[in-house]
Amino acid sequence: MTDTIGVGLIGTGYMGKCHALAWTSVKPIFGTGPRPRLVQLAEANIELANQRAEEFGFAQATANWRDLIANPEVEVVSVTTPNAFHADMAVAALEAGKHVWCEKPMAVGFSEAQRMEAVARKSGKVAILGYNYIQNPLVRQIGELIAAGAIGEVNHVRVEMDEDFMADPKAQFYWKSEASSGYGALDDFAVHPLSLLQRLFGNPTRVFAHQSKPYLDRPTAEGGKRAVETFDIASVLFDIGSISGVLTVNRSAWGRKGRIALQIFGSAGSIVYDQERMNELQLYRASGPAAVQGYQTILSAPAHKPYDRFIPAPGHGIGFNDLKAIECHELLRTIGGEKGRVIDFTAGLEIERTVHAMAQSHAEQRWIEPKRAGH
Amino acid sequence: MTDTIGVGLIGTGYMGKCHALAWTSVKPIFGTGPRPRLVQLAEANIELANQRAEEFGFAQATANWRDLIANPEVEVVSVTTPNAFHADMAVAALEAGKHVWCEKPMAVGFSEAQRMEAVARKSGKVAILGYNYIQNPLVRQIGELIAAGAIGEVNHVRVEMDEDFMADPKAQFYWKSEASSGYGALDDFAVHPLSLLQRLFGNPTRVFAHQSKPYLDRPTAEGGKRAVETFDIASVLFDIGSISGVLTVNRSAWGRKGRIALQIFGSAGSIVYDQERMNELQLYRASGPAAVQGYQTILSAPAHKPYDRFIPAPGHGIGFNDLKAIECHELLRTIGGEKGRVIDFTAGLEIERTVHAMAQSHAEQRWIEPKRAGH
Amino acid sequence: MTDTIGVGLIGTGYMGKCHALAWTSVKPIFGTGPRPRLVQLAEANIELANQRAEEFGFAQATANWRDLIANPEVEVVSVTTPNAFHADMAVAALEAGKHVWCEKPMAVGFSEAQRMEAVARKSGKVAILGYNYIQNPLVRQIGELIAAGAIGEVNHVRVEMDEDFMADPKAQFYWKSEASSGYGALDDFAVHPLSLLQRLFGNPTRVFAHQSKPYLDRPTAEGGKRAVETFDIASVLFDIGSISGVLTVNRSAWGRKGRIALQIFGSAGSIVYDQERMNELQLYRASGPAAVQGYQTILSAPAHKPYDRFIPAPGHGIGFNDLKAIECHELLRTIGGEKGRVIDFTAGLEIERTVHAMAQSHAEQRWIEPKRAGH
Amino acid sequence: MTDTIGVGLIGTGYMGKCHALAWTSVKPIFGTGPRPRLVQLAEANIELANQRAEEFGFAQATANWRDLIANPEVEVVSVTTPNAFHADMAVAALEAGKHVWCEKPMAVGFSEAQRMEAVARKSGKVAILGYNYIQNPLVRQIGELIAAGAIGEVNHVRVEMDEDFMADPKAQFYWKSEASSGYGALDDFAVHPLSLLQRLFGNPTRVFAHQSKPYLDRPTAEGGKRAVETFDIASVLFDIGSISGVLTVNRSAWGRKGRIALQIFGSAGSIVYDQERMNELQLYRASGPAAVQGYQTILSAPAHKPYDRFIPAPGHGIGFNDLKAIECHELLRTIGGEKGRVIDFTAGLEIERTVHAMAQSHAEQRWIEPKRAGH
Repeated sequence: MTDTIGVGLIGTGYMGKCHALAWTSVKPIFGTGPRPRLVQLAEANIELANQRAEEFGFAQATANWRDLIANPEVEVVSVTTPNAFHADMAVAALEAGKHVWCEKPMAVGFSEAQRMEAVARKSGKVAILGYNYIQNPLVRQIGELIAAGAIGEVNHVRVEMDEDFMADPKAQFYWKSEASSGYGALDDFAVHPLSLLQRLFGNPTRVFAHQSKPYLDRPTAEGGKRAVETFDIASVLFDIGSISGVLTVNRSAWGRKGRIALQIFGSAGSIVYDQERMNELQLYRASGPAAVQGYQTILSAPAHKPYDRFIPAPGHGIGFNDLKAIECHELLRTIGGEKGRVIDFTAGLEIERTVHAMAQSHAEQRWIEPKRAGH
Repeated sequence: MTDTIGVGLIGTGYMGKCHALAWTSVKPIFGTGPRPRLVQLAEANIELANQRAEEFGFAQATANWRDLIANPEVEVVSVTTPNAFHADMAVAALEAGKHVWCEKPMAVGFSEAQRMEAVARKSGKVAILGYNYIQNPLVRQIGELIAAGAIGEVNHVRVEMDEDFMADPKAQFYWKSEASSGYGALDDFAVHPLSLLQRLFGNPTRVFAHQSKPYLDRPTAEGGKRAVETFDIASVLFDIGSISGVLTVNRSAWGRKGRIALQIFGSAGSIVYDQERMNELQLYRASGPAAVQGYQTILSAPAHKPYDRFIPAPGHGIGFNDLKAIECHELLRTIGGEKGRVIDFTAGLEIERTVHAMAQSHAEQRWIEPKRAGH
Repeated sequence: MTDTIGVGLIGTGYMGKCHALAWTSVKPIFGTGPRPRLVQLAEANIELANQRAEEFGFAQATANWRDLIANPEVEVVSVTTPNAFHADMAVAALEAGKHVWCEKPMAVGFSEAQRMEAVARKSGKVAILGYNYIQNPLVRQIGELIAAGAIGEVNHVRVEMDEDFMADPKAQFYWKSEASSGYGALDDFAVHPLSLLQRLFGNPTRVFAHQSKPYLDRPTAEGGKRAVETFDIASVLFDIGSISGVLTVNRSAWGRKGRIALQIFGSAGSIVYDQERMNELQLYRASGPAAVQGYQTILSAPAHKPYDRFIPAPGHGIGFNDLKAIECHELLRTIGGEKGRVIDFTAGLEIERTVHAMAQSHAEQRWIEPKRAGH
Repeated sequence: MTDTIGVGLIGTGYMGKCHALAWTSVKPIFGTGPRPRLVQLAEANIELANQRAEEFGFAQATANWRDLIANPEVEVVSVTTPNAFHADMAVAALEAGKHVWCEKPMAVGFSEAQRMEAVARKSGKVAILGYNYIQNPLVRQIGELIAAGAIGEVNHVRVEMDEDFMADPKAQFYWKSEASSGYGALDDFAVHPLSLLQRLFGNPTRVFAHQSKPYLDRPTAEGGKRAVETFDIASVLFDIGSISGVLTVNRSAWGRKGRIALQIFGSAGSIVYDQERMNELQLYRASGPAAVQGYQTILSAPAHKPYDRFIPAPGHGIGFNDLKAIECHELLRTIGGEKGRVIDFTAGLEIERTVHAMAQSHAEQRWIEPKRAGH
């Protein structure tokens, strides 16, 4: 008889739907592991909850997420609500003995993130964050190339993350420009490049950050103007041990839609990657005659595991949602006792620590060395 | 109560899995339409059938595809077996009153394809072919741009389809080099570009084709050599009314992995597309000052329906498998009485007719005008 | 004392200026060979001739090109006038004992080209055509890669040449749409790809061509319309021995500005090149692990001779005019008795022969095998 | 009668040859302005001087650059020697009443640069620096687009300059790793991006820099190791008024050959440029329907002045050396009393000031505001 696992889903927006699709397709894609049972789904109101349950194929719906956590059939909980709710929901789920799959960033404040991490560590349950970009088979390939010495010893890294959803100065002021929402691009975006850096090289050992505002104010619904309190742009110098680096993020970058651009320089080559062309990898190796040296454009292929679980032919391309299915599979492997490729709450807390160190650096205009946990 | 539809799946290889994933995710992705019930799955032997049923979530498994067709719970049948089986399975399913979703090409011989089309037409059921590349939201966008006159009147088209799975001359002779498998690249590949041409411009009115063999023989398992009987390369001149065009296909094209490259020239602009970068479209419009003219690289975005059903943010990228989910949705819409974006057996027969006309042109070294059906 | 060579230039338009720049810079660029003395320049009227002589640094000017050819100080003559004048000027110059550097195409009619070739052969002088694209260091590199077996045995080639100077249907009818100007894209453009093919693989052994008109008529100055007599588009299937190929040319291709795109497929790899990115070469070699295979983008560099004579650093880029300087250097080497990389009148005649065979194929709708000279 | 100008050239290496080519071709390219007379050339020894004079077409040669400066026929002096000689030569030339065209960077030390600027200002002669990248017609186009408001108000800029001539850790220690040669990438490379920033936006108002060493030591000829004293990598945060920015330079960046990548973000669009594809410009304008928004790839064309002086057809491509010819033309225009597009010693001094402020920032680990001159 098939092994199964009971799933609860809180939130059904952008990421909620992404989780639902992952839970639905993970078993046919990978062929192994338990079959997810879609037990219960929670939304802000019962009408929407019912509608989404029908669409996503969940058996039950509720407008009270605590009911979902109390549901004994639910074994793992997807938390995909706005950031402000992450801590309470994740903590409640863990304390109820559920595994947790929480979207990033962990929480709005650092102390909340610390609380989540402490509870997770004590719980003995699996608690991971939805850093899906590390799941791209080509990002995994980058890691393997570096580990295999394909570009020698890495000495310099640049990473950029840019989109343009805040680029229009005529767009009305909304909550993302309020200080209560966080720093701005730093917590909205920087966590993603940091997840890639952490996976590939480790956490920054020191940071120097500068945040800026492309627009000092934005129009209000009432026809006036309101001062912008968050920073849509952040530029950060950092070191990871002997690797020097630059991280820049901009959520007002007209023309950029999903850019996460990596440039990794080593003593024997370099690697370039951009999430907007997520099925391509650029590899330069300093060997052979000068006349035939140049970046190789490697298309994603079955050789880049687990692309082969999606498509047996190379160059056909996986999509953004497929990354979440891989993440789901890694979560299930971790729950099953294997060492999955995940960013758990302990690793995730270090990302949060870096972000807050960056904000501190901006405020104090000096290099900050994040104090890493020693467990 | 939710509307449902009973699904049978014959074949669980490359395309079989692709269908299974589409049937599984179509409802959560689109939110509307009947919920597929995964009733029964057929494979060559019962062990594999059982395993796949467990993986894909089908309730029953069988080693006899006729059982599946006889199953009254099955309302629609996915046919994803090798080409030689398509005709018998599709015909049997249609005659049993099922809708049919059959992979391309329709059949090995043209008369088989004609039989399928005739049965489908008579059946009153929906019978479509799996030409998934037309489902790319950007291909749909190309059609809308042309219809809106964005590039004026189209006068010239070039299309290439290239992969390299037959490129290695040292790879052993196998069935794809036998004449019994068909012409070669012409039926393996040309049907895909033809599906795009049909959707965008209509069917070729005349063709002149030349096929060629990159390797005259291939090694055998026994250490000898065997003459290659099929053509891995085909180059075709064609007209579609007043549009002139070139179609080239090559399954021995080292370096190409999933290339389907379109170049469309019109009186007011041009469009360039390559499936290897399936989330990008190049659009040139001959307007405005010369100093700022150039191809625009348009990234797939929610504005390109139904990308928005997968991801609400632009530039994040859908994947190859997502095209099959869109195709599944269009099939369900068609079954539901709407005018779905599908290539039914009647339209598909015209693609087959073109392919056979190409082969005839090669044999007779003259222009051939395919005799189109008039119904 | 420095060796010198006396130069005469007929025509000072697009190509005339390009020749003048080449004659001026060839010595400082290459450092070797005779120093060109800019003796005399001919233009349609003496005012323009005088002005250009002053600009280009020629000592004398004339409105009678026969004076220039009679000038004993002139040792080599650049012929850069409209095509209709090439034959008379080149023949006169050769008969006067001058070397000739004539722009392509050779002549409007094939018999004229034959006359030029016969005179050149008899003259014992150097007579070459201005096929500058073969001079790109990266095109030379392509030849070396193929010769070295980097992509194995070539079996298929595609080449496209596209620009958009005839793309506007509202542009007034002018001489390029008159039959007296030639076939259209076939002689305007096809000669360039043919020069590349000749240099890399030899001359086509058979051709099948189809020409088409994007616009059947064009507006006249008087406000009426006039039927277009030439073909702005041509598509050609060809063989060069066992290599199959496709050549397409379009001078009404909106968005294309200087595209000459080559795709060369071999048994061990492939090469892709586009003149619009003339400092880049794509090389795919089918070796090594599948996970790290992909096209290499090779930037032009000192290793690609004679790029090093222009710039000692890689990746800085040479330009279109630099190709003419290289051609000039190869001409001077040939005059000096070395085996320069040039297309002489005998080789050029074979290009003309191919073009006329293509036009014949279009007219007769059958494969044509050009009858190659045997000397 | 033709106006002429007497030219002296000191140094005949990489940039010396580049100047020689510019002096030779500037008149035929532009058609206007004085004709350069190549009067005298100076090199380290008379044999090389004589050889280069013969190659480059200079009338006289000398091994003593002071002779050249004393030559009354010389009216303008190209200084293309190693940086350490710039100051003495430029100052001597200016004091002798010559115009000066000096390669960048100005000098090794800031006080030397100040001396040069002071002498130049007093001299009444034209003294400019060889910042040729600002001469690219597409860079000029970027300036015009910004001035015309095509991307709204600029709020963020990123610029990178990377090459790999110092990337090999096994390459022997040479003078570029000695502290006496300067800071490293900061003065080798950063001056170029700074010239672009200055021309487009002005000089940085504050900077925060971090330099790093990819390799702590390098092998010596004797088989030992020697500590590297310069920084091959530098990363800098900066502001130019309300524009925030990041500048990174790396001369150990494997795979990069001539990369100078600009990303300019504004309130209504963005512009992206890379010198490795110097004939392409990316422009994004946030207008029109979302379905057809995307970066436009604009190829260099006659509309981008003075590309038209080189080639009358678009998309054919100019080269690196052509930039120096444009610079030469702008110098001659300035000498002629027009307002040329040049970076004179006063503007160049501000670039030097910025570089030294960056080095100071690195040393003191704080933001530095360069104290700009007020004249």
